[in-house]
Amino acid sequence: MRVTVLVRPKTGIRDPQGEAIRGSLAGLGYPVSEVSAGRIFDLEVDTDDPAEAERVGRETAGRVLANELIEGFEVVVG
Amino acid sequence: MRVTVLVRPKTGIRDPQGEAIRGSLAGLGYPVSEVSAGRIFDLEVDTDDPAEAERVGRETAGRVLANELIEGFEVVVG
Repeated sequence: MRVTVLVRPKTGIRDPQGEAIRGSLAGLGYPVSEVSAGRIFDLEVDTDDPAEAERVGRETAGRVLANELIEGFEVVVG
Repeated sequence: MRVTVLVRPKTGIRDPQGEAIRGSLAGLGYPVSEVSAGRIFDLEVDTDDPAEAERVGRETAGRVLANELIEGFEVVVG
């Protein structure tokens, strides 16, 4: 099953990549006042059980994909 | 308005980050047979018009956020 893990910087944590992109977009004249930059992972998990797929997504997010000190994550199955 | 831009490697384009993560997860014993690694950008666009917000999202994705030679993108408003 396909599982998508969305990793985003936590509120209040500095996000230098987002800030740099915000500056570039402002320089190009786009009306964008905030940018947050995160990562997205699409996993193919070898199971037909959505609960098991979600469990694998959450566990790999917590152990490998995200740094929970500074990032939050969201797991979407299917 | 909030606009989210999802940037993913195109099918058939090598994705070394995804491959490395797949290898790590396999080493840890997770039943994950494929990993694709992309980026997610949340923009705060200064407009109340969803069509304008989407236009800004698509244009900034094409010009700045994604490399269309090797990446595809998806724009979600709201």
